Amino acid sequence: MLKGRQTWWFENAPSLLCGACAGAEMESKGPLAGSFDYLYYDMRAGRESFEKAEQSIMEKAVEIALQKAHLQKEDIDVFIAGDLLNQITSSNFTARGLGCAYLGIFGACSTAVEGLALAALLISHGYGQRAATATVSHNATAERQFRYPNEYGVQKPSAAQFTATAAGAAIVAAAGEGQTKITCATIGKVVDFGVSDPYNMGAAMAPAAVDTVITHLQERGVASDYYDVIATGDLGKVGQGCALELFNRAGVAIKRSSFLDCGGLLYGGEQPVFSGGSGCGCLAAVAYGHFLNLMQKGQIKRLLLVGTGALLSPLTYQQKESIPGIAHAVALECR
Amino acid sequence: MLKGRQTWWFENAPSLLCGACAGAEMESKGPLAGSFDYLYYDMRAGRESFEKAEQSIMEKAVEIALQKAHLQKEDIDVFIAGDLLNQITSSNFTARGLGCAYLGIFGACSTAVEGLALAALLISHGYGQRAATATVSHNATAERQFRYPNEYGVQKPSAAQFTATAAGAAIVAAAGEGQTKITCATIGKVVDFGVSDPYNMGAAMAPAAVDTVITHLQERGVASDYYDVIATGDLGKVGQGCALELFNRAGVAIKRSSFLDCGGLLYGGEQPVFSGGSGCGCLAAVAYGHFLNLMQKGQIKRLLLVGTGALLSPLTYQQKESIPGIAHAVALECR
Repeated sequence: MLKGRQTWWFENAPSLLCGACAGAEMESKGPLAGSFDYLYYDMRAGRESFEKAEQSIMEKAVEIALQKAHLQKEDIDVFIAGDLLNQITSSNFTARGLGCAYLGIFGACSTAVEGLALAALLISHGYGQRAATATVSHNATAERQFRYPNEYGVQKPSAAQFTATAAGAAIVAAAGEGQTKITCATIGKVVDFGVSDPYNMGAAMAPAAVDTVITHLQERGVASDYYDVIATGDLGKVGQGCALELFNRAGVAIKRSSFLDCGGLLYGGEQPVFSGGSGCGCLAAVAYGHFLNLMQKGQIKRLLLVGTGALLSPLTYQQKESIPGIAHAVALECR
Repeated sequence: MLKGRQTWWFENAPSLLCGACAGAEMESKGPLAGSFDYLYYDMRAGRESFEKAEQSIMEKAVEIALQKAHLQKEDIDVFIAGDLLNQITSSNFTARGLGCAYLGIFGACSTAVEGLALAALLISHGYGQRAATATVSHNATAERQFRYPNEYGVQKPSAAQFTATAAGAAIVAAAGEGQTKITCATIGKVVDFGVSDPYNMGAAMAPAAVDTVITHLQERGVASDYYDVIATGDLGKVGQGCALELFNRAGVAIKRSSFLDCGGLLYGGEQPVFSGGSGCGCLAAVAYGHFLNLMQKGQIKRLLLVGTGALLSPLTYQQKESIPGIAHAVALECR
């Protein structure tokens, strides 16, 4: 049922049965390296191109998630996925290998949460027993598609973010299986404060993140401290600062220590990632690795995942459009 | 509930309350011109670029659909949209103007049906009273993004298809409103027969269309003549021929006269569209204009809409990948 205008309340809360994540060399040097199920030390992952590598990384995350759940790909009723490549081809080609019903989605870096919300919706109403959802990003494919190939060595401002080479996959199953339940989801609206600098996507996405979090808290009827952690993905340092300022202006109390950003967690302070990590694989990898581990250990009981997307393209930027942002939220709670 | 593996059965079948479509000059010269709600005679629709025009055409279709339903944009609980532009920017910018919850999707030319299926799913389970779903394509933006700018005047083979400059929008409402119900949807799987010619997307998509139609008929437990019309979008003449051959090989009887293709209906035989129309606005415009009119007049009582998508990108083609296809189906029936 709908609570308020934007919040999907799952009366028959499905389970996030298990998750898996794969990363690459930069991720292996970050503080969350130990939470990855698989790390590639070759940006091509043994394939002929970065794009084919991106597909392999997504496939690896899905494969490991299935293994952890003791499932075969035939056990998956629906696969919901998206990525940053034009025409979401990494997802399409991964879906080809799975052979089940497939829904392609796009929400830039909010894609992982959009997919998780849709998977939970379908499973909670009996449209299958198990859904798989995944996202991936790759630093080299994103740089050459959205900006310049890495080989050019273009300098970047400090507000820029570093696209993670990472994938995350989750298996959503009916209530009764698994310890982590998906209680509700808040689907965001597009928010545009007129930011037009593609090297400052954190600032462009922060208003959407704040709008969705405030809407979620209001529609669910809880205060922000209901959640042990509210984790955005990916605002970076700059965007997180903007978000805290906007919460403050809106009079919403947010505890700094429990308001985390996946793009800030994935890399260490000494790594050259500017404002922080980004890319739709960043939140997916941090959520389905690091955070899910903490929930399984009981160290986090209630988590609000907030995927934030910058809905621009190189072409809209060249045509002088501003950068609309969107954020979707999903609440994960221990049963 | 799920029937079989891929068919969503809506026990509380929602209504396709109304639809609207907008097109451009080529569409105004075709046999379905009279079914369009709005026709632009300027490919730029008064905007500075083809891409901004594409956005305006989608916005126009949504605006007219709302007018027909006597609704304001504030009455829409969720907007589900996608298009062919990289990062589905026409949809993102249209969503920005609506200010409601937004789900971005991508399924190439299957997008319209994916959106309709998701809208029906949400409304049938009470996640809102009214959903809007839309898609758009623009000949000039698609040509320059996927092939060459039209100004180059590249010659094309006869199996090529002509991307429609068209948008279609539909309003889905709870059961009780409207005369056209959405009974069920079959979500397709990715099917790849190894076709790798981007000038023959009909052949690449036909196996997916046939797979989804056969799955739909089996899982619903009806013969193909249950439907007055099975309408694909968009196989073109070449793809339709392939599909009929594949149905024949599978031993599934399909009446030729009721197996129609939106890409074949939109343009006249004398128009230079090669194998037929395509682009995700093609099915949307033909379905929400022409076919919905016929259903409202009672001339069609049961329609199976089959959106077919070619899940390639220029980059996957250049990297020697084959073209995976997908098809989703939605059943529309008079109450």
